[in-house]
Amino acid sequence: MTDAIRYELVKQCAHTGARAGILHTPHGSFNTPMFMPVGTQATVKAMSPRELTEMGAGIILSNTYHLFLRPGHELVAEAGGLHKFMGWDRGILTDSGGFQVFSLGDLRKISEEGVAFRSHIDGSRQFLSPEIATQVQNALGSDILMAFDECVPYPAEYDYAKRSTERTTRWAERCLKAHSRADQGLFGIVQGGMYKDLRAQSAAELTSLDFPGYGIGGLSVGEPKHLMYEMLEHTTPRLPTNKPRYLMGVGTADCLVEGVMRGVDMFDCVFPTRVARNGTTMTKNGRLVVKNAEFARDLRPIDPDCGCYACQNFSRAYIRHLFKADEIFGLRLTTIHNLYHLLDFMRRMRQAIIEDRFLAFREEFWEYYPKEEN
Amino acid sequence: MTDAIRYELVKQCAHTGARAGILHTPHGSFNTPMFMPVGTQATVKAMSPRELTEMGAGIILSNTYHLFLRPGHELVAEAGGLHKFMGWDRGILTDSGGFQVFSLGDLRKISEEGVAFRSHIDGSRQFLSPEIATQVQNALGSDILMAFDECVPYPAEYDYAKRSTERTTRWAERCLKAHSRADQGLFGIVQGGMYKDLRAQSAAELTSLDFPGYGIGGLSVGEPKHLMYEMLEHTTPRLPTNKPRYLMGVGTADCLVEGVMRGVDMFDCVFPTRVARNGTTMTKNGRLVVKNAEFARDLRPIDPDCGCYACQNFSRAYIRHLFKADEIFGLRLTTIHNLYHLLDFMRRMRQAIIEDRFLAFREEFWEYYPKEEN
Repeated sequence: MTDAIRYELVKQCAHTGARAGILHTPHGSFNTPMFMPVGTQATVKAMSPRELTEMGAGIILSNTYHLFLRPGHELVAEAGGLHKFMGWDRGILTDSGGFQVFSLGDLRKISEEGVAFRSHIDGSRQFLSPEIATQVQNALGSDILMAFDECVPYPAEYDYAKRSTERTTRWAERCLKAHSRADQGLFGIVQGGMYKDLRAQSAAELTSLDFPGYGIGGLSVGEPKHLMYEMLEHTTPRLPTNKPRYLMGVGTADCLVEGVMRGVDMFDCVFPTRVARNGTTMTKNGRLVVKNAEFARDLRPIDPDCGCYACQNFSRAYIRHLFKADEIFGLRLTTIHNLYHLLDFMRRMRQAIIEDRFLAFREEFWEYYPKEEN
Repeated sequence: MTDAIRYELVKQCAHTGARAGILHTPHGSFNTPMFMPVGTQATVKAMSPRELTEMGAGIILSNTYHLFLRPGHELVAEAGGLHKFMGWDRGILTDSGGFQVFSLGDLRKISEEGVAFRSHIDGSRQFLSPEIATQVQNALGSDILMAFDECVPYPAEYDYAKRSTERTTRWAERCLKAHSRADQGLFGIVQGGMYKDLRAQSAAELTSLDFPGYGIGGLSVGEPKHLMYEMLEHTTPRLPTNKPRYLMGVGTADCLVEGVMRGVDMFDCVFPTRVARNGTTMTKNGRLVVKNAEFARDLRPIDPDCGCYACQNFSRAYIRHLFKADEIFGLRLTTIHNLYHLLDFMRRMRQAIIEDRFLAFREEFWEYYPKEEN
C-alpha cells in the first residue's frame, strides 16, 4: 500500500461516531471533517484557486469522466498534472467517472469489463473500465483517486443490488492492480444499496483489500434521509478507524452534521455552488433566496454573522441587483458565501468535537435549521 | 467651482501633446494617462473590486442610464452612495446617460427640455434632462459626473451638428446650475461632430464655463480613425492645460497611444472586457483569440511578458479548456488579462513620457501592433 494518504485521528467523540482528524496528502494536510468543493471540469465553478484557498478549502474534487472527455487526461498530464493545469496547490480528489457514466442511462452499456458509453459532448463512442479509470486518474495526478464502481440506484431489487455490489468489489481489485503511482492514494468505495447485509458485505470485502481510505457510495440517490443515516450506521463502524471515510455526493448542512455524527470525515456535493448560481444562499436558518424581491432594499449582508468576502463587503440589495442585471459578480459572491458557509460549518463542528460538545453543537444546529429543508 | 477634482501636471512631452499627471479625487489620486475599466451596472463585468485594485485601476466608470433604471439611484443613495454600494473605494466617474438614451433610436424623443425614452428593461416611460441626470449623479455620489450632452452621430450634416453642439452647451450650463455637491467634480463635454470649427466653438464655450475637467465626446462613433485624431488635434489644444481631458468610449491600444500623443489624460471603453468574455485577449502583437483550436495544447501563458494573475498562473490550453467547457473562470481570466494589459500599457506609456522618450515608445508600439486591427 501507498503511504501517500495518511489519516491522523485527533479526537474521537465519546458519545457518537464523530471524530476530528487531519488528512495528510502529497499536497498538504487538511483538517477533517472537511467539505470538498466540486471542480468538475478542472475549476470550481466561478471560483479562482486563490478564493478557495482563502476560504479554507484544503481539498477539492474533480471529475475523471469530464476531464477524460475534455480536455483529455493526456493534455493534463503534459501540463504537469491537474494541480499545475488548474493552478491549485492543495489536495485534489478525483472520482472515477463511474457515477457519471451510470447516470447516462440509455447512452451506456455495462459489462463485466467496463462501461461503453457515448460522450455527452459529441456523441463519440467511449469506454471506461477499472483499469482505464485508474490510468486516467494516474495521469491526472490527483492526491486521492477513487475506484471505478457501480452505483446501485434507488430503489433496487435485492438480487440486482447484490450482484452489482459484488462487481464493485471485483472492480476495486482490478483498480488496485492497475494503480501505478506511489504518490497517490486509491480509495475503495463501499456500495450495497439500501440493504444492511450488503453494506456489511461490501465493507468487509473492501477493507480486506486495505485501501488508504474508503468512499461510501450509493447514498443520497433519492432515498429518504433516515434511510441514508441507517445505512451509514451499518457502514462506518465496519471501516477501520485509522482510515478516512468519505460520504460521496452529500453537501447540505443537515446531512453533514448527521454524517459526521456517524463517523464520516469527508463530503462533497455540487449543491452549494449550483444553488448559489441560481441566487440561493445558505444560512444557519436554511436557505435565503437573495435574488427575491423582498431583498431589493435590504442593506444587510446575506448573513450578518458570516466572515466571508461577500458578507464582509456587500449587501443583499447589491447582490440581488447583480442577479437581476445578469452580472457574473453576483453568482461569484453567492458561491463564495455558500462554500465559506459550509467550510466554516465544518470548522465549527470540528472544534465542537475537540471540545467534547458535539452533541450540544448538533442540538443547537437543529434549533435553527428548518426540518423540512433538503 | 468645486475643488473636488484637481489635476497635477507632472511632465509635458517636449515633442507632442502627451503629458503625465496625477488626478486627485475625493477617493484617492491616480496617475494619468489612465484607462478606466467600465462598470456599467455598478460592477465591472466578471471582476471583483479587489481584482481591480490589484491590477492598478485608480478609477472606474459607471452608467447613470443603467443605474437610474436599475436598481435606481435612490437605493444607491440609501446604501451610502455608489462606492459603498459596490464596495469600491477608489475613484468613480459616471457618465450622464446622454449617450445611452440617444442610442435608443426610435425609443427616445429629444426636446430642448431633455430626452423622453422607454426603458430597455421594461418599456416604461422615462425622462432624463440636464437637471435630472445631474441630480441622479449627485445621488450616486461619483467623484466625477459628466454633463448631460447630445452626442452628434456620424455622419451628420453641418447644420444638425451645429444646432446639436450648441444645445450641448446650453445643457452644460443647466447641469452646472443643478449640480449641488462640493465633493464631486462636474465635467463638461466637448462635441462638434467632425467639424473643426464646431469643435473649436464647443471647446471655447465649455471652457468659458470653467469645468474642473473636460470630456471629448462624439468620437469613436464610426468615423475613420484619422478623422478622430484630426478632431482631437483641433480640440485638446483649446482646453486648459491645468484640467484633465477625457476621450470618451476609446479603449484599443492604438487609439490610446494616439490619443495620449494628442494630449488626452483619461479613456474608457467596454472593448477590453467585452472581447475578453468572447475569448479574445489583447497583446502587444494585437489580438490573440485564446479559445481558438490552435491553442488547445499551448502551455504558454497568454502573454509570457505579462505580469497579470492569468498569465502568472495559467496556460492558454487551460483557459481555452475553460471557454470550451463554458466555465466562468475562463472569462474572469481573460478579463483580468485585458484590463491589466491596458492599465500596464498606460503605466509604461506614462513612464516613457516622464523619461522623455514618448515618441520612441510610440514607434516601438507600432512595430508590433498590426496596422489593420481595430
